Amino acid sequence: MGVDDFKDYQLTIGKILRTGLYAAPDQKLIYAPPNLPKREFTYTEFAERVNRLGFILEKFGVKSAEKPWSMGTRVAVMDWNTIRFQELMYAVPMYGAVLFTVNIRLAPQDIAYTMNLAEPEVLFIHTDFAPFLNAILENVKTIKNVVVMSDEITCTRKGELPKIEAPEDVGIYEYEELLKKSGEEKYNWPEINEYFVASLFFTSGTTGLPKGVYHTHRQILLSSMQILIASMEYPFRASNRDIILILVPYFHIFGWMQPYYCVLGGNKLVFPGRYDWAHIARLIKDYIPIAREVGGSVMSGGVPTMLYAIFQEAKKMGITDYKGFLFGYGGEALPISVYEDAKKMGIDVVTGYGPSETLTAITRATFIPRMWMKMGTDSEKMRDHFVLKNSLGVAIPLSFVKTVDEEGNEIPIGSETPGRVLFEAPSPTREYYKDPEKTESAWRYGAFDVDDFVVIDEYGAVLFVDRAKDAIKSGGEWIPSSRLEGFISSHPAVAEVAAIGVPDPKWSERPIALIVPKPEYKGKVTEEDIKNHLIKEHVEKGTMPKWWMPDKVIFLDETPKTATGKINKRILREEHSK
Amino acid sequence: MGVDDFKDYQLTIGKILRTGLYAAPDQKLIYAPPNLPKREFTYTEFAERVNRLGFILEKFGVKSAEKPWSMGTRVAVMDWNTIRFQELMYAVPMYGAVLFTVNIRLAPQDIAYTMNLAEPEVLFIHTDFAPFLNAILENVKTIKNVVVMSDEITCTRKGELPKIEAPEDVGIYEYEELLKKSGEEKYNWPEINEYFVASLFFTSGTTGLPKGVYHTHRQILLSSMQILIASMEYPFRASNRDIILILVPYFHIFGWMQPYYCVLGGNKLVFPGRYDWAHIARLIKDYIPIAREVGGSVMSGGVPTMLYAIFQEAKKMGITDYKGFLFGYGGEALPISVYEDAKKMGIDVVTGYGPSETLTAITRATFIPRMWMKMGTDSEKMRDHFVLKNSLGVAIPLSFVKTVDEEGNEIPIGSETPGRVLFEAPSPTREYYKDPEKTESAWRYGAFDVDDFVVIDEYGAVLFVDRAKDAIKSGGEWIPSSRLEGFISSHPAVAEVAAIGVPDPKWSERPIALIVPKPEYKGKVTEEDIKNHLIKEHVEKGTMPKWWMPDKVIFLDETPKTATGKINKRILREEHSK
Repeated sequence: MGVDDFKDYQLTIGKILRTGLYAAPDQKLIYAPPNLPKREFTYTEFAERVNRLGFILEKFGVKSAEKPWSMGTRVAVMDWNTIRFQELMYAVPMYGAVLFTVNIRLAPQDIAYTMNLAEPEVLFIHTDFAPFLNAILENVKTIKNVVVMSDEITCTRKGELPKIEAPEDVGIYEYEELLKKSGEEKYNWPEINEYFVASLFFTSGTTGLPKGVYHTHRQILLSSMQILIASMEYPFRASNRDIILILVPYFHIFGWMQPYYCVLGGNKLVFPGRYDWAHIARLIKDYIPIAREVGGSVMSGGVPTMLYAIFQEAKKMGITDYKGFLFGYGGEALPISVYEDAKKMGIDVVTGYGPSETLTAITRATFIPRMWMKMGTDSEKMRDHFVLKNSLGVAIPLSFVKTVDEEGNEIPIGSETPGRVLFEAPSPTREYYKDPEKTESAWRYGAFDVDDFVVIDEYGAVLFVDRAKDAIKSGGEWIPSSRLEGFISSHPAVAEVAAIGVPDPKWSERPIALIVPKPEYKGKVTEEDIKNHLIKEHVEKGTMPKWWMPDKVIFLDETPKTATGKINKRILREEHSK
Repeated sequence: MGVDDFKDYQLTIGKILRTGLYAAPDQKLIYAPPNLPKREFTYTEFAERVNRLGFILEKFGVKSAEKPWSMGTRVAVMDWNTIRFQELMYAVPMYGAVLFTVNIRLAPQDIAYTMNLAEPEVLFIHTDFAPFLNAILENVKTIKNVVVMSDEITCTRKGELPKIEAPEDVGIYEYEELLKKSGEEKYNWPEINEYFVASLFFTSGTTGLPKGVYHTHRQILLSSMQILIASMEYPFRASNRDIILILVPYFHIFGWMQPYYCVLGGNKLVFPGRYDWAHIARLIKDYIPIAREVGGSVMSGGVPTMLYAIFQEAKKMGITDYKGFLFGYGGEALPISVYEDAKKMGIDVVTGYGPSETLTAITRATFIPRMWMKMGTDSEKMRDHFVLKNSLGVAIPLSFVKTVDEEGNEIPIGSETPGRVLFEAPSPTREYYKDPEKTESAWRYGAFDVDDFVVIDEYGAVLFVDRAKDAIKSGGEWIPSSRLEGFISSHPAVAEVAAIGVPDPKWSERPIALIVPKPEYKGKVTEEDIKNHLIKEHVEKGTMPKWWMPDKVIFLDETPKTATGKINKRILREEHSK
């Protein structure tokens, strides 16, 4: 007794929900998918639905982790940003299990590959992805229970599931029905150690196959606190008055912590479901006055492509003013034209940077004293500095970035020498899942390394210089060029191939293919031949996502080479970017 | 290799300094004691001085903690809020040792008592307290090295120490001289586990002798993040543009985390040294325009008595406008007249609540959606609600308060039944130092209990109802009534005595003594007899602080009694509060 009575406070996801419930029991979470009536839930109702999920997971025989760094049962989710995904974001980790957010942008075969690594026992799947369900169940034998989720049923409480054929030993359920039948009493959540693994997801990566990264309750809670502090500083000045329109895919990198840090504040959340940009542009317009009425803004985030898509739709609708809309972008540079459009419409944009491995943003365009003491406090000037220099922002409080040369020697802040960027922060993944070699490489300098080269300028801001890799980034998602080249070179005419990214106003980059044909095919093989081959042999067979398809195929007599005899993609990019 | 390369990020105080240095290397810490020239340090210079302290602690043979929850060497500090205290706030814990902030408001004998419990080996002491040094060294045999700190020497780099006589085996040094002679190279700080104890201090308590409470790096860092988030929300909307004038004594409860969370943001800090209210009123006036120039405010905090003292001095100087000054108060209710004065002068005031045991505020007057969704977003209305109801604010994010009845059953939020308030938060002390009985009692309901009774209203706000104890709170400091009664009853005339607190415009409460004399002394003993006795027998002998002296002594024929035969102090307070 005495000191043994002390209960060490654990940094767990359940604490976030409890904080939100206390701060805002009547605040709304609004599920607003396209073409359906909205459905609104108070935080209290949301917590009740989370509570019911506890009984459902138990019924499925889901197991909690038992010791630090261990994983409970993996529960897979394939969904858009919906109220249901938000519920699972809490229920699964609070149960002690691992939320495995399936990257639905991967090719079907890669999805199966990631699933077979993760070995989920339960799959929550949106009806939009039901057509793949058979193939998934055929390939992934660990799945014992499937819960199908329908927007129609969630929003209208009516409707039917599509007909689903599944092996006999797999249970098939409907989400809302399960919730309705679940226990109503208070679910007795287990005590969770903050080092239990809460999440697992796969980064599409820049080379080779998708790589798994996982994070603990502690990492998620600490990151949420850090991001919240950074968001509350200038320029964003986030507060609990803001309405959060959640655009960053939950299936990607956990929605950049929005499912968590926005609940900590007790904010109103809007889930737009499947991406329908006209619908989203309208939601923004509708919610701005509601937010402004209480002194808040509408906040959102995502890749620049999303902002571009919103503009296109807004223009069509004749919207010229989005004052009161804030957009945090990341993943790639903001095209200057999009930035100019944003300014004209009164939108505040700030950038952030954080690869999947680090769970969330490590840097963010925050106005720190290092900057405003030198530059003055003019917001537009500081914002320009970040956007126009392709700056990725400054480290969020308590996370640290530094650059090192190839020997691992630290390069001082303000030096113009680019270096390998390393992160020291609460959030980097402990390891690449089942990939010790890659893990060792990431930690070889003693702080986490994701193979990016940057300069840290005199203001402490991280300027993107060059990727250490040749991957293509389209719409915020990576296309590993080597894998795309592999698909292309399966055509018999190809002697040499280089897939490179070229600038695109909408997608930021799109892939093009540069091919040196074998002599016997010279002048005989066409762009269409290559494209048809890719469709028939790869897209239709589920090994390549359709959006990887090169926009253009160009035939060359030869390719420029580096000193070591590799194709010099830098020169190719320069030649074909104009 | 692989996963073993992973370095778990530790939540340590060194990370705060590193964040501040990155965000604001040229930001200033200003030491501005009364009657001396200011001395300014950049964060970079401050960090260099902290660095030098590493070598000094090493030279003194200070030892780091070695395992979670263990304590390194205790390093005692007796100082006002100075740049030096700020340096020690970082250097001592970063070294792995324990910063023991001596409560200089205690009686000399109680100071010796706490020191003999804490067993410090090093003492940093301001020249103002040098007169007590001999007595301390005589009573506290663990102290091997004493560093004397002089404002004159720190600010002017000139001057001499007062003559100090010390036992031969005790080293006596001067702070600035030590720093000057210390190593200049980078001190190699040890790796600190977040569960190492960082701080130890003694609460003056409400009954009996002072009680020690201690906290880890993890607790300090998490609390700092929580307070920062709460401060950045409405109404305060703190940002890195604000100037922090540090009034909350560091020797009290670690300055309510200001030494830490304000460095996290990279704020400008001003240390006013010894309390001189005219000087402080002038500092506020001087720094408001400087803060406003960059869009910030001057922020401060402390007990209401401090705000009252500032007003008195401001009035004398003819200051009528303090717009841009924010004051967070705690420790006791804000007298309505002081609140009205604050409003007239344009000062934003918010309250907070957190006993020493919880290291920092557990609640704070933050505008949460639970409140503004019902009450509207009018700031003045919400502020009034907090102040006029003697509300202590709402729980800061991730900390939880609840009330229970004497059986430990939770009372729902919004009920009018007062209950015992319990805290579930990262910050409560693990135990009362060397007091297992008191510790067991504090944890007996499974969450930390400090013996206060409150109501949690429909807005989630904690309303102070009654203290579970009869202590007197004067100028934000406790006077344990039972101890004061003990001193009084040492006079031979006293048959019965009750010391109670009565309202006071300046100190919030002051003690008065109600005495039933023994029959033989009736009509013969006077107020002066009692007061003289207290001075001669207790104040002059160092057992009772002078400020405990009752303002008034009243003789009664009998006292009202409770059902169990105890003196009914509630009735006495009612009768004598008018």
